[in-house]
Amino acid sequence: MKILVLNCGSSSLKYQLIDMESEEVLASGKYERIGEEEAFITHKVNGQKIEIVHPAKNHEEAVDFTLKQLINPEYKVIDSLDEINAIGHRLVHGGEKIAESVIITDEVIQVLKDCTELAPLHNPAGIIGIEACKKVMPGKPMVGVFDTAFHQTIPEERYIYPIPYEYYEKYGIRKYGFHGTSHMYVSKRLAEIENKPIENLKIVTCHLGQGSSICAVQGGKSVETSMGLTPLAGIPMVTRSGDLDPSVVTFIMKKEGKTARRSRRYIK
Amino acid sequence: MKILVLNCGSSSLKYQLIDMESEEVLASGKYERIGEEEAFITHKVNGQKIEIVHPAKNHEEAVDFTLKQLINPEYKVIDSLDEINAIGHRLVHGGEKIAESVIITDEVIQVLKDCTELAPLHNPAGIIGIEACKKVMPGKPMVGVFDTAFHQTIPEERYIYPIPYEYYEKYGIRKYGFHGTSHMYVSKRLAEIENKPIENLKIVTCHLGQGSSICAVQGGKSVETSMGLTPLAGIPMVTRSGDLDPSVVTFIMKKEGKTARRSRRYIK
Repeated sequence: MKILVLNCGSSSLKYQLIDMESEEVLASGKYERIGEEEAFITHKVNGQKIEIVHPAKNHEEAVDFTLKQLINPEYKVIDSLDEINAIGHRLVHGGEKIAESVIITDEVIQVLKDCTELAPLHNPAGIIGIEACKKVMPGKPMVGVFDTAFHQTIPEERYIYPIPYEYYEKYGIRKYGFHGTSHMYVSKRLAEIENKPIENLKIVTCHLGQGSSICAVQGGKSVETSMGLTPLAGIPMVTRSGDLDPSVVTFIMKKEGKTARRSRRYIK
Repeated sequence: MKILVLNCGSSSLKYQLIDMESEEVLASGKYERIGEEEAFITHKVNGQKIEIVHPAKNHEEAVDFTLKQLINPEYKVIDSLDEINAIGHRLVHGGEKIAESVIITDEVIQVLKDCTELAPLHNPAGIIGIEACKKVMPGKPMVGVFDTAFHQTIPEERYIYPIPYEYYEKYGIRKYGFHGTSHMYVSKRLAEIENKPIENLKIVTCHLGQGSSICAVQGGKSVETSMGLTPLAGIPMVTRSGDLDPSVVTFIMKKEGKTARRSRRYIK
């Protein structure tokens, strides 16, 4: 079985084609600057790195050109797109509706739309990637893997913020957590390495990068994590403050004449 | 030596008259609703609790009427105000200028004014209390005891926020910490009880109330605390969230159409 994994950003597309039997990455790469004339793909295959400048007006064209690289006679890894059995989409925000990886249906796309306010850069990009795949490879089974899903086991007393409860009821303001796929993988892998049943383990996992988060995993389930409503929360990061005195936000806004509308959330 | 201790709020005045030799509280109480017709004082003396409704247009009148209770023939604790040797003012925000208790001078009043933005409810009240005492008891030595002073030993790497450094340089946005008098007292008292030199101790002190904060005290010095730029920071409190995903603030503002100007800081 061969699976194509996609991670769509607002103007980028990362991909890997994985042979599930051998767990080998057959090809991988990144399409950047989608929507611009200077769009280009960096395709890695057989130890080579091929860079091609090729305009892609949108994600559909980018997906199309990417697939062409997989079957390009010069460095093909499959003979036909039929060999791709399924597509996995890395998605960000599934709100409270998604607690595991799911087959992508219209309902799942609706959840992505409903949660767009909570991940304004990522969820729209995820939808675009799904729609592009639908057009280029109609009927191919697709699975959504959400950043937030693993943290849906965090108990209520930890995901409810100490702010008026109506903000949770009206707007869904609560801790969601991110990097779920990473925390899940690392905790499972540790149990494997330690050769102990994960049900008996208490693990703290650290996802450290441009964006960073920490997660407490008890018996294989996320029970607490540092990120919150958005990936701005938690520990200090490269371009994100992490948790802060909330007055700092309004103090700066007053001093700098900024409004909430002008603020951007940086999510990576 | 007898010391009058004052803690001025925006419409209240708490006080204690302390005999320093015996450390006995001779009288104490609270003036409430200063500025309103229904202003009243609750005066505790000799095990009695006396409540008097007495309009006080301002803090000066409240201080004046409070002093009258101390020498009221019915329940006096001193014969004359001359017996009060000094006045101690509980003050909140001394910024980076005040690192210990200080004799109140014009410079100290200027610091209070300069830090008003950082404690918009408390610093003006403190100034009002000082000015009232100056008028009612001119020439009496006054000492300011600041909530922030004890935390001035927190090292730079902990008081600088992970936000653009210019906000510290331009606006003084940094961790200040509060409840300093409480954390200092509790840590010193613990060293006494344990009969160990405080220089050798590492202590975590908890100030738990309507407003709460935690402090790490190493060798008698504050090296970290949970409150920050304002007393809204840190652990969850009765009417304050503590540290939060900063996006929660802007998310609510957008949803509720709120601006930074309308937000209030609750400080107690």
